[in-house]
Amino acid sequence: MEKNPVIAVIGAGAVGAYYGGRLAQHGHDVHFLLRSDYKHVAKNGWTIKSHHGDFKLPPGTMHVYDRPEKMPKADWVIVTLKATANEHLEALITPLIKENTKILTMQNGLGNEERLAELFGPQRILGGLAFVCIHRLEPGVIHHIDHGYLRVGEFIESGDTHARAITEMFRKSKVECDVLESLKKGRWAKLVWNIPFSGLGGALEMATDELLLSREGHDLVRAIMKEVIAGARGCGVDLPESVIDQRMKETSTMGSYKSSMQIDREQRRPMEVEAILGEPVRQAALAGVAMPITAELYRLAKVVNLAKGRETR
Amino acid sequence: MEKNPVIAVIGAGAVGAYYGGRLAQHGHDVHFLLRSDYKHVAKNGWTIKSHHGDFKLPPGTMHVYDRPEKMPKADWVIVTLKATANEHLEALITPLIKENTKILTMQNGLGNEERLAELFGPQRILGGLAFVCIHRLEPGVIHHIDHGYLRVGEFIESGDTHARAITEMFRKSKVECDVLESLKKGRWAKLVWNIPFSGLGGALEMATDELLLSREGHDLVRAIMKEVIAGARGCGVDLPESVIDQRMKETSTMGSYKSSMQIDREQRRPMEVEAILGEPVRQAALAGVAMPITAELYRLAKVVNLAKGRETR
Repeated sequence: MEKNPVIAVIGAGAVGAYYGGRLAQHGHDVHFLLRSDYKHVAKNGWTIKSHHGDFKLPPGTMHVYDRPEKMPKADWVIVTLKATANEHLEALITPLIKENTKILTMQNGLGNEERLAELFGPQRILGGLAFVCIHRLEPGVIHHIDHGYLRVGEFIESGDTHARAITEMFRKSKVECDVLESLKKGRWAKLVWNIPFSGLGGALEMATDELLLSREGHDLVRAIMKEVIAGARGCGVDLPESVIDQRMKETSTMGSYKSSMQIDREQRRPMEVEAILGEPVRQAALAGVAMPITAELYRLAKVVNLAKGRETR
Repeated sequence: MEKNPVIAVIGAGAVGAYYGGRLAQHGHDVHFLLRSDYKHVAKNGWTIKSHHGDFKLPPGTMHVYDRPEKMPKADWVIVTLKATANEHLEALITPLIKENTKILTMQNGLGNEERLAELFGPQRILGGLAFVCIHRLEPGVIHHIDHGYLRVGEFIESGDTHARAITEMFRKSKVECDVLESLKKGRWAKLVWNIPFSGLGGALEMATDELLLSREGHDLVRAIMKEVIAGARGCGVDLPESVIDQRMKETSTMGSYKSSMQIDREQRRPMEVEAILGEPVRQAALAGVAMPITAELYRLAKVVNLAKGRETR
């Protein structure tokens, strides 16, 4: 492993600021690519209000950029761009690539590793699942509300050298992190929650507790979870049905929670409809498994998105 | 026909106030049953701001009540209650019934005439389709924005004596009105518009222009309209496919319009999910015709309703 690796964080919103910020806080050489908050962060750095203890990253402790061409070649590229902006991946990451660059995408849903693998080769691609409640309060200020656990796996599942390396870096930087045996399985397992709650939450503008207020709501969420498990199985990922009870139980005790898609819709940003709904439906269909309710939800959410948030595809 | 018929309007919101108000304005003996606006209207009467010319109904020109037991037996009962309150029909109408009472329901969707026919006998039931943009601005003040056309048919389709009689009354009271050859056909034809635009509008919180902003939105609305035409056909109502193009053309030129279900949702009132979505899906299913997209939309709208508006069933 590189002695002092150059780490680039692409699309540093709340998630990028937090995870990249932890690495910078612990002495790593982190370079953030920003868009809307660039000027503010270049001048004032980041302020992270975290349930693990607040911290600041003054401008001297890390580097910020508004264009990737100004950044050094990176040993690690961490992608925290919204999946709705994936059309920009090639232009944003190409300038950072050298022979041994690894790319960790922490984006939601399915299809992101595949896209990066097509662009930059599969051997350097990793995926990270962030289990975290976090959002941006104002320019340069991130609120890390709860959780923070990170699970990392390699796109080519036979190896785990790179996954172990970055897991080690995160662990030494106060981020709970472990290596996924199967990234694909991890992605589908996360979708068991994300497809019903983010999909319905975004399309219908309903928080988790509202969705679970009626028996009909419970039944609908469970029916969608069942479809996700069937879709996963079609794609070679075996998830036990008991996952449904677990997720339902966790969700019913966590109070009112707005999914990322609901928040995106409220703020009139495009929802990650393709990554969270469209791609799972398509991958399952290719494997011969229909996900009829999810497919209909995808269709509705897409119509919402095209009017309210304008996702490009 | 009765010389000076007693007319009772049950559940006088905007629609009841307007159509009952036109009858009162032209010398008819109209008795309104109100709930929330009772005190205000008893004291101040109605003010109707209409695109056909504003008018007022001072307290002396009509009668208002807060309980049906205080009302006289009626020759005509006009029902303008929300279909979500149909559980109250029996208690509200029973005190008004005498041998020759006729009941005209102007409620939305399917199933209302059937319910009244079960309660009070089919021979006295009529249905009215109001093509009108109207809403309540504040207590006692109604805003009649556009249209106003009324179509009336009898539940037992072999006769039209009663339909002709009330049509005549409305025509003499400045309401455009005609007799429907088939009430059932009229109801289904109205649903071709109402199911997609009110259903999607309410479930997704989208106005007509937002739904038609994308090709995907157009396709979805058309696919639902096609299901409604198939459902109607199953129920013995033949509507030409060309209705779809007509409705789409009209809707695309009428600007941004919020359906009644969307407005109900915004104001946290129950949406008429059963009358507009559930009953058509059930009637079509009984006739052996599946309406899969509409059925899914019904399911979603019901979950929204149960959390946001609390429709009882």
